[in-house]
Amino acid sequence: MKQIILLRHGQSLWNLENRFTGWTDVPLTQLGEEEARRAGEKMLAAGIAPDFYFTSVLKRAIHTLQIAAEAMDRDWVPVIKDWHLNERHYGALQGLNKAETAAKYGEGQVRDWRRSFDIQPPLLTPDDPRYPGKDPRYASLTDDELPLTESLKDTVARVRACWEEIIAPRLHNYDSVLIVAHGNSLRALATMLLHKTATEVTEMEIPTGSPWVFTTDDRLKVTSTRYL
Amino acid sequence: MKQIILLRHGQSLWNLENRFTGWTDVPLTQLGEEEARRAGEKMLAAGIAPDFYFTSVLKRAIHTLQIAAEAMDRDWVPVIKDWHLNERHYGALQGLNKAETAAKYGEGQVRDWRRSFDIQPPLLTPDDPRYPGKDPRYASLTDDELPLTESLKDTVARVRACWEEIIAPRLHNYDSVLIVAHGNSLRALATMLLHKTATEVTEMEIPTGSPWVFTTDDRLKVTSTRYL
Repeated sequence: MKQIILLRHGQSLWNLENRFTGWTDVPLTQLGEEEARRAGEKMLAAGIAPDFYFTSVLKRAIHTLQIAAEAMDRDWVPVIKDWHLNERHYGALQGLNKAETAAKYGEGQVRDWRRSFDIQPPLLTPDDPRYPGKDPRYASLTDDELPLTESLKDTVARVRACWEEIIAPRLHNYDSVLIVAHGNSLRALATMLLHKTATEVTEMEIPTGSPWVFTTDDRLKVTSTRYL
Repeated sequence: MKQIILLRHGQSLWNLENRFTGWTDVPLTQLGEEEARRAGEKMLAAGIAPDFYFTSVLKRAIHTLQIAAEAMDRDWVPVIKDWHLNERHYGALQGLNKAETAAKYGEGQVRDWRRSFDIQPPLLTPDDPRYPGKDPRYASLTDDELPLTESLKDTVARVRACWEEIIAPRLHNYDSVLIVAHGNSLRALATMLLHKTATEVTEMEIPTGSPWVFTTDDRLKVTSTRYL
């Protein structure tokens, strides 16, 4: 029996400001930190003791993990920080206010960008200061891997690579893994674990700060799920 | 050219209470957290940008690293937490007040335990609640690896294993590594890097919260050192 816990980071500064965030590295708000602490306390109270951690390379997820780990008194657990678990890249929308973008492009267009499975928001150009190729944390990525934008389908594909190559192999040696990430990367993981369709994934909503516990058999087939 | 930065964690609760700490997992004080933040700010101001982190499995070192990393805006850097970098194990002295211990055993005896190279403090017994074999973070250690006490010589030997097998190999692919650890495990590392003798290592004092920067050639021969 294995345990996979998905945890979505709490409120960040740009959630509060209603801006498209994507790969922008904004910090948690005080409320976001409090959500992280409560998530750790809930896992502790439920007797959940992860023995491996995974998170993205964005500080709102990393800090959520660190705060929850401290609340569980399990700071010492090994961690892998992997860009594949980042939030969906929002292309040229990153940094824009969601309401202003809707006023400019129309509600329908913005809904398509946000809620469709395979429509990409407008592309960044490589000379844009927001281009991830300028950031040292992505220095090891190939040009093919560096996104200029992403549809949800693109995000699902790279999260799948992380699941298959990084996370699932560790479940041979570890019994309980905690993955702290973002709305769309966690939807991608849940889709794989639950064998959902493309339509179902666009409709899935994962609450922040609520550990979502998947129990599986030793072949990683899900036998039950529950939110704490 | 490579860079190895050693950072000793700041004040912990038991430093403040003047107790033998060793492998006991006590948190930083507020002053200790402030020392960590300043250490990160000093590295940032000096243009030091570590691309790999190492720390022990004790929270006073892990939290020092996390706070310094946040101050450098480099939360995303990969990290290995390794028990080999733990503080020296103080055996049955762990938890005792240093002044009370000196009053009971004599100043000379306590000085020998603390300052000699190869004298071990009294042993723990495996049924002692302080025995590390009871702690899940040490579950993968063999009986031979689980200490009942340690001389400084014992600590140097296990830190050497970590240096040779875990840290030095990463310096092929990474140019600047930050190691956040403890008085004695850092003395052990500095001894190896500087080819010091047993007598010299017992006399070495490493200040807390001050990044100690070793510059080396590509074969890891030290060419200069400085404190920030």
